[in-house]
Amino acid sequence: MAQSRDISSYIIAPDPDAARLTRAVQGIDHTGARIDMAVVEERPLTIFLNNREIVTAMTIGDYPEYLALGFLKNQGMLAKDEDITGVDYDAELDTVVVRTASQTTFEDKLQKKTRTSGCAVGTVFGDMMEGLSDVTLPDIPVRTSDLYALAAQINRTPSLYLTSGAIHGTVLCKGDQPLVYMEDVGRHNAVDKIAGWMLSENVTAADKILYTTGRLTSEMVIKTALMGIPTLASRSGFTAWGVDIAKDVGLTLIGRMKGQRYVCLAGSHRLITDADPSTIADEPRKAGRKAG
Amino acid sequence: MAQSRDISSYIIAPDPDAARLTRAVQGIDHTGARIDMAVVEERPLTIFLNNREIVTAMTIGDYPEYLALGFLKNQGMLAKDEDITGVDYDAELDTVVVRTASQTTFEDKLQKKTRTSGCAVGTVFGDMMEGLSDVTLPDIPVRTSDLYALAAQINRTPSLYLTSGAIHGTVLCKGDQPLVYMEDVGRHNAVDKIAGWMLSENVTAADKILYTTGRLTSEMVIKTALMGIPTLASRSGFTAWGVDIAKDVGLTLIGRMKGQRYVCLAGSHRLITDADPSTIADEPRKAGRKAG
Repeated sequence: MAQSRDISSYIIAPDPDAARLTRAVQGIDHTGARIDMAVVEERPLTIFLNNREIVTAMTIGDYPEYLALGFLKNQGMLAKDEDITGVDYDAELDTVVVRTASQTTFEDKLQKKTRTSGCAVGTVFGDMMEGLSDVTLPDIPVRTSDLYALAAQINRTPSLYLTSGAIHGTVLCKGDQPLVYMEDVGRHNAVDKIAGWMLSENVTAADKILYTTGRLTSEMVIKTALMGIPTLASRSGFTAWGVDIAKDVGLTLIGRMKGQRYVCLAGSHRLITDADPSTIADEPRKAGRKAG
Repeated sequence: MAQSRDISSYIIAPDPDAARLTRAVQGIDHTGARIDMAVVEERPLTIFLNNREIVTAMTIGDYPEYLALGFLKNQGMLAKDEDITGVDYDAELDTVVVRTASQTTFEDKLQKKTRTSGCAVGTVFGDMMEGLSDVTLPDIPVRTSDLYALAAQINRTPSLYLTSGAIHGTVLCKGDQPLVYMEDVGRHNAVDKIAGWMLSENVTAADKILYTTGRLTSEMVIKTALMGIPTLASRSGFTAWGVDIAKDVGLTLIGRMKGQRYVCLAGSHRLITDADPSTIADEPRKAGRKAG
């Protein structure tokens, strides 16, 4: 158990001191005293795929290129071997344009769809579900000692959450090591930034664990499965459909992970229980992160 | 202070025992013991405006008509005096069709937009911001005694959150009385269901307070302002843009409200501090709801 590990294993860690990500806002507290409070920023970022505007996401604004790439990938708008020829961020216009060598299949689908309904949102979700039919996640064992070690490290990592709150985090991990810790005002942005980083760096997914502060909803489970990651863990709870999808694709789904406790509602046959829960410290009150 | 009030003031309260809203899922806990856990449902609901498919929302599935109406209203797709001729829910198809006497202005806008970009998501958000320019919220005082009384009652109200977790709640209140308490897997759904109820019942907004478990993001502040409600309170934190918008429209924004504490980052001149915080019980650990 790596209870006292430092954060040196991170390839990308949160940067809670980055000036652009928070702002001091004046207000009053319950005693009427004037206070200055660090509040997370939230900026619009409009994502284009070639010449087509896809979505305006609300984001803290770090890693816009990863967010755009990961969003498009997780929505099934980029093929497995898509030839991405450019990812151009314009800080003044708050836009990212992702360019592909040829028109994507998404554009064909959208073309067809707009004639009948005019909006892509429904289509997009349908496409995400559609993409799942090809997914078979590798049957890789998960050590509970690794899960406990990851939770302990992640909870102690300096982050915007600990500084300012009102933010979600998602962490890509391998074994007992957290590798890439992304935060954002939307939990889907945090996971999309991880997906964008994995796509850019051509990272293997089969040996990874994804940890999130957010709830294990259908969309979070679908995204994790589409990314090819076989294990998803969270401090938060489940939705029934999230559990159903996890079972269908063979994903190990662990929720309500706090201190020595957790609940596994899918893929528990892959758990290797090599840690004695009674040796794990119950979560100290001060370190108490929310269940998002 | 109404610390021991019962829940009889509710017009709509959560129904945590409703069979359709949760499902028992089997799994294992950290000791390896088999457990049965009540998990909230999450179902797709496709919303149509006349003959046009607008969005597929993920919802627990209660009050689909209010959700559809409120979503369309909060997205600026229904005019102030829109003549709504029907709201038809089809439980088998998971669809709601909202019908209006004449084509809405949204359909014109969408028509124009689809020619250039093909997706409404960006437009929709733009329209929400656009709608704000007409908004002037009434300068109505807010008693801190009411805020404390509301928080105490809402936290003790039987709810899906207390039963199953992984859900957000939004409560429409007047004075010290919670009136309509909606829950949903998405916090925006919960607020949209309130908006739909208000539209259906033709409810005055100026004398209301909106309480949410979710974060005070731009979208939550915009929705509250578009609904005409001058005060928004939450257990959770803020985003900087949410605070900016609240200041612009004259909304009183109270966050991190737990036990005797709160922070007010906009519109604090409207607060009447008629409660002594030291007389308010600090939140007992057991009643601890999350900061969402």
